[in-house]
Amino acid sequence: MAEKKRILSGMRPTGPLHLGNLHGALANWIDMQDKYDCFFFVADWHALTSNYEDTGNISDYVRQMTIDWLSAGLSPEKNTLFVQSHVKEHAELFLLLSMITPVPWLERNPTYKDQIVQLSNKDLSTFGFLGYPVLMASDIIIYKADGVPVGVDQIPHVEITREIVRRFNHLYGNVFPEPQAIMTKTSKVLGSDRRKMSKSYDNAIYMTDTPEEIMAKVMQYVTDPDRKRKNDPGNPDVCNVFDFHKLYSDQALVDEVNTQCRKAGIGCVDCKKKMGANLVKFLEPIREKRHYYEDHPELVADIIVTGSAKARAVARQTMEEVRAAIKI
Amino acid sequence: MAEKKRILSGMRPTGPLHLGNLHGALANWIDMQDKYDCFFFVADWHALTSNYEDTGNISDYVRQMTIDWLSAGLSPEKNTLFVQSHVKEHAELFLLLSMITPVPWLERNPTYKDQIVQLSNKDLSTFGFLGYPVLMASDIIIYKADGVPVGVDQIPHVEITREIVRRFNHLYGNVFPEPQAIMTKTSKVLGSDRRKMSKSYDNAIYMTDTPEEIMAKVMQYVTDPDRKRKNDPGNPDVCNVFDFHKLYSDQALVDEVNTQCRKAGIGCVDCKKKMGANLVKFLEPIREKRHYYEDHPELVADIIVTGSAKARAVARQTMEEVRAAIKI
Ligand code: SF4
Ligand code: SF4
Repeated sequence: MAEKKRILSGMRPTGPLHLGNLHGALANWIDMQDKYDCFFFVADWHALTSNYEDTGNISDYVRQMTIDWLSAGLSPEKNTLFVQSHVKEHAELFLLLSMITPVPWLERNPTYKDQIVQLSNKDLSTFGFLGYPVLMASDIIIYKADGVPVGVDQIPHVEITREIVRRFNHLYGNVFPEPQAIMTKTSKVLGSDRRKMSKSYDNAIYMTDTPEEIMAKVMQYVTDPDRKRKNDPGNPDVCNVFDFHKLYSDQALVDEVNTQCRKAGIGCVDCKKKMGANLVKFLEPIREKRHYYEDHPELVADIIVTGSAKARAVARQTMEEVRAAIKI
Repeated sequence: MAEKKRILSGMRPTGPLHLGNLHGALANWIDMQDKYDCFFFVADWHALTSNYEDTGNISDYVRQMTIDWLSAGLSPEKNTLFVQSHVKEHAELFLLLSMITPVPWLERNPTYKDQIVQLSNKDLSTFGFLGYPVLMASDIIIYKADGVPVGVDQIPHVEITREIVRRFNHLYGNVFPEPQAIMTKTSKVLGSDRRKMSKSYDNAIYMTDTPEEIMAKVMQYVTDPDRKRKNDPGNPDVCNVFDFHKLYSDQALVDEVNTQCRKAGIGCVDCKKKMGANLVKFLEPIREKRHYYEDHPELVADIIVTGSAKARAVARQTMEEVRAAIKI
């Protein structure tokens, strides 16, 4: 039997996870946990690249994110779940890789250019932000990952990792495999305003929201903008609420809304209430697990400690090979 | 009784030490070892910034440099002597400081600009080379050093360290003192060609040279260029050999050379032999100690291990404060 391929992926703990994360990255991870030898980590050092001025919440976000993962069904037995800053070896490899990484590789990174523009309200021209792909390369190759699940926008990062690997192996001998980018589906879940669901747009429903908060947010959702009054027929194809019905309601209700909306047979308020109830129901088992883990913080702490120790054992082994190769 | 102030200084293990190093940095360190609480380190990670393509000798240079220090009279009891890469905490602090250090601070560093020009034969535009002052800042402040002995050319580095300290303390609270630059004398020892003694000019006498090698090098020294024949009078004021007499010969001989040279009463060959013999004699006790340490490699290894453990204990304590301050 062939060994499972190893993959690595991380999330930055910059706030609670929302439905976009749940149906996007997290759903992909849960799909992969049986197929691969998975290393999933909370990228708390990476969170500093954009949030170094406001770090007060990071440790809470780390714990919350771990709970989100566990609640959504990520198994601490099947996977190695860990926190980046608990494995100091990432920092040592970051330092060593920094010595062989040309600055121009980093400056031409399209994500770097984009983010500088997008997040222009923050002072992002730091040395650490420029070196983001170097730290990411360390995260990946310290576990000799075969693959990295990514969305389209992250492909350049994986490409830099591959370049760094080639350079390292060329200079010091073959230590690292070149990781492959594994393309993943991105979530189609939109925010209340039909833009991409995102914390920074303030349009998100969070995994930590209570049923009441969820219902209140759903009632604020933008529907078919041309349906001004209840008696106007609507068009579900351009309605955010209908997209959510397709995710959370059964086929009978989806069909009913699809038909009734077009002939003004159902009002938006009613339609939203039905969808919201189903969304709340969908999140119920996740919420229950979350309550359980919140009531057992020692269990969460133990999962982090155990997973980080597992990760560290692998990272230490790699670093011994790295030091031997560099002869330092 | 006031506590001794703490200072920190390091040398990059890029080859054996020569007389310029001995009468420069090393002499300063030996002067300081009673006055200060000294942390002296072999900067092997720093050596990678310019030598990442050729690392085969670094670990040997580290050992040789330690022996040079001990032979010259640096005490492992009075000082904390350690190897940078043995204290991984430097790498963690480097990573954290990189997040708060603006790239423009590094780009405008005059040493960065200079070295890019001077060492144009090497591919220096790496991320690690750009970040040299960030790693140096980590080295200094992880021990909360009060002062850093420097030559004039390194003042901008200490200034960047102070800026990073101010920024850190402003963002996360007062953890680090601002280190002061302590101006030191630089060595006046010139190479055989009257240029600055330097490995890269191939004009150096090394602490590891045998008496025969030293004599052979001395015989090649440029003297007063206007003294073509033995019967021409010479001018000791423009003669490298005379400068060496002043360092290694007694006053009677210095006076004699000064007088006799001017009236062609002594030949250059004879003059060099006398100086060379005194230089060999000066280095004799250093050479003896070197032989001792070379015969007892386990002693050298133990000094490095013990010193690095002492350094690590301080660095760990600081990193706990750092993590608590950043709340990560
Ligand atoms: S009835 Fe439902 S599907 Fe139709 S516009 Fe209103 S919310 Fe959207
Ligand atoms: S005699 Fe001595 S001091 Fe005079 S030029 Fe020759 S080497 Fe120099």
